[in-house]
Amino acid sequence: MSSLKSPASSLSFEINATEGAARATTLTTRRGVIETPVFMPVGTAGTVKGMRLEELESPDLDARIILGNTYHLWLRPGIETIKECGGLHKFIGWDRALLTDSGGFQVWSLGALRKITEEGTAFRSHVDGSLCFLSPEISMEVQAVLGAEIAMAFDECAPGEASHDEARRSMDLTLRWAQRSKGAFDNLQAEFLPLPSGEGQTGSLRAAGRDAGEPQAEMPALPDRQALFGIIQGASHLDLRRESLERTVEIGFDGYAIGGLSVGEEKHVMMDVIEEVAPRMPADRPRYLMGVGTPEDLIEAVARGIDMFDCVLPTRNGRNGQAFTSRGKLNIKNARYTTDQNPLDQACNCSVCRRHSRAYIRHLYQSGEMLASILLTHHNLAFFLDTMKRVRQAIRSDQFAHFRREYTEQLNSGLEA
Amino acid sequence: MSSLKSPASSLSFEINATEGAARATTLTTRRGVIETPVFMPVGTAGTVKGMRLEELESPDLDARIILGNTYHLWLRPGIETIKECGGLHKFIGWDRALLTDSGGFQVWSLGALRKITEEGTAFRSHVDGSLCFLSPEISMEVQAVLGAEIAMAFDECAPGEASHDEARRSMDLTLRWAQRSKGAFDNLQAEFLPLPSGEGQTGSLRAAGRDAGEPQAEMPALPDRQALFGIIQGASHLDLRRESLERTVEIGFDGYAIGGLSVGEEKHVMMDVIEEVAPRMPADRPRYLMGVGTPEDLIEAVARGIDMFDCVLPTRNGRNGQAFTSRGKLNIKNARYTTDQNPLDQACNCSVCRRHSRAYIRHLYQSGEMLASILLTHHNLAFFLDTMKRVRQAIRSDQFAHFRREYTEQLNSGLEA
Repeated sequence: MSSLKSPASSLSFEINATEGAARATTLTTRRGVIETPVFMPVGTAGTVKGMRLEELESPDLDARIILGNTYHLWLRPGIETIKECGGLHKFIGWDRALLTDSGGFQVWSLGALRKITEEGTAFRSHVDGSLCFLSPEISMEVQAVLGAEIAMAFDECAPGEASHDEARRSMDLTLRWAQRSKGAFDNLQAEFLPLPSGEGQTGSLRAAGRDAGEPQAEMPALPDRQALFGIIQGASHLDLRRESLERTVEIGFDGYAIGGLSVGEEKHVMMDVIEEVAPRMPADRPRYLMGVGTPEDLIEAVARGIDMFDCVLPTRNGRNGQAFTSRGKLNIKNARYTTDQNPLDQACNCSVCRRHSRAYIRHLYQSGEMLASILLTHHNLAFFLDTMKRVRQAIRSDQFAHFRREYTEQLNSGLEA
Repeated sequence: MSSLKSPASSLSFEINATEGAARATTLTTRRGVIETPVFMPVGTAGTVKGMRLEELESPDLDARIILGNTYHLWLRPGIETIKECGGLHKFIGWDRALLTDSGGFQVWSLGALRKITEEGTAFRSHVDGSLCFLSPEISMEVQAVLGAEIAMAFDECAPGEASHDEARRSMDLTLRWAQRSKGAFDNLQAEFLPLPSGEGQTGSLRAAGRDAGEPQAEMPALPDRQALFGIIQGASHLDLRRESLERTVEIGFDGYAIGGLSVGEEKHVMMDVIEEVAPRMPADRPRYLMGVGTPEDLIEAVARGIDMFDCVLPTRNGRNGQAFTSRGKLNIKNARYTTDQNPLDQACNCSVCRRHSRAYIRHLYQSGEMLASILLTHHNLAFFLDTMKRVRQAIRSDQFAHFRREYTEQLNSGLEA
């Protein structure tokens, strides 16, 4: 794109197939190849809750990229600790790709506990109640230390029901913060970030995981820097969304995200925004829909041109006893499963469904056993990641329209008795 | 042994090597070969807390037998549920060997909540407060449905500091219960226990786990029944312990356990009892020390002739932030580990120590992340199971005395700064 003002991107991006607005692409980072549409499991505090990295890497899940939350990691263990441990990859032992959010959304969601000014956001830590301050510059510094392949601009989110005026104020602020994020990011990438371990700049770190995945030999020669994505805001107002997109693209990022959805607005409003924005997003850059959503949401957003997703649903709902299946949601607490010897999902081939019954997992849940969360999270992630794999295959074989219809029909067909 | 009145044992037992009182044996069950001395991870409610079965089966741990608790499983999910699901192996998806305790110790440890009579023990359920009753006959019935390779006689435990009179009363009761356990067990094994699944008697069930271990072809033709172990009581009184042993052997069991230790008595008292009892236990039967202990305890008990162990220390202490290492215990909560990039144990080669630092695991623990428990439990079990593997190798190569000295010295050498 001629509008890109950044130096050569640290991501290589290639569109392999399209069907309507849906696209199958290959996104290559310093730490492995990511085929899109892709679902990124959320690793809030440096762990996808309950999952060992070996599970995330196993053929069942084969997660190529996971998220870390700047807000959480900044507060605990703190950026000095992560810096001393050589960045986030090395700290957690993950050798594949990472994406860090900017902390903007998390701080925003603190509600009454935060105060937003032009400079940034003041808030109270949920860990120890101390007064903290996050700004575009600080977020970029923290994210540079974390060293993810993809960093996010620091943004402000507006509520789903924000008025046009409120949404414009918020969007304008986000755009000014986007410009500052970009400036700070470019400066940080240009300078060395010496680390105590003496391994040179953040970007050259390799994680400690010895069993981890991608053969480094396959990696293309990408610039040794992070990528930065800009975030499109504007609440439910389509004119603001279009303006936000245009002005964000003018600043120029390595990829673009739609933020501020799934924050209380109705489902059709979310789909209207995606339908309005996604096709207008730069075709030669990854398109990321933040914090969304259910399996249906993913399919519908892919149909509108989205490449990347993250969401806590498979992990959080798993911990709360909910399984996602090919025939809809299953609440393992339900007494009907007491002696049900079927797997969570008859159509699923994950290691949990190959081995464990609903009766057993219900027993674990009712007994407060950790293994209930572990097994439900594993299955749910397997279900989300397998769905995306099937989506990619469908687009590549020009069968996505058919897949979308069948998948959705089955989802709504209800669980067998 | 001529004193064995039971039909051909469902265990095959062979002594491979001895060094002093220590012995390396092979115990073969319908569900796999167990080399002893062996440590059995505790799977209280049908799960070794935080561990997937795949981890227990992995080369790191390679647990050949795990425990289930009759008391816990009886109360929840209840024996009807497990029966309908085809027994404990099938219910939890484990195809290797299982041992179930009798519930005697667990009910005893309820303290004020239980009342012991000649007939059995009345107690209040910790799950829903309902009044329950457990007796030798009921325990045998429940254990027959659970279908473990090894069941335990229903016993009564005396406190560590019990007087001679108290200990004798308790021991006499345990002996009467042992006789009743044996009678009920033999009747149950003789009759068919038809199951809803139509798979015939309990003993012929195969677990559902499709990836599980032992090739069935290697299994010897063992009788299709469970084994029953008797339990020696007598608190700290050596004369009572000897009498308990003699009279338990007269009843005749497939193996013998020392119960009532590690219940508040001093360490040297425990070792005195083991030293008195173990060498007198039938040499051609497995010797099992129940609920013990630390790595030092295991080594010392092996030196006195014990073959089998179970203990919650590696799992429970793991969940509480404690790692067992070759140089003693490590408390991950300690601030000194905040940026410590060493593994939990420099001498350990488990998947946790190969990949994760103390700093990361400390962060997980401080953040209340499940993964802290998972990683600490995995490492601790790997440490205990690896210790036993080294013990077996040492005995087989006549190096156990040397191993015992070196291992203990290192344990007490303290953690590196």
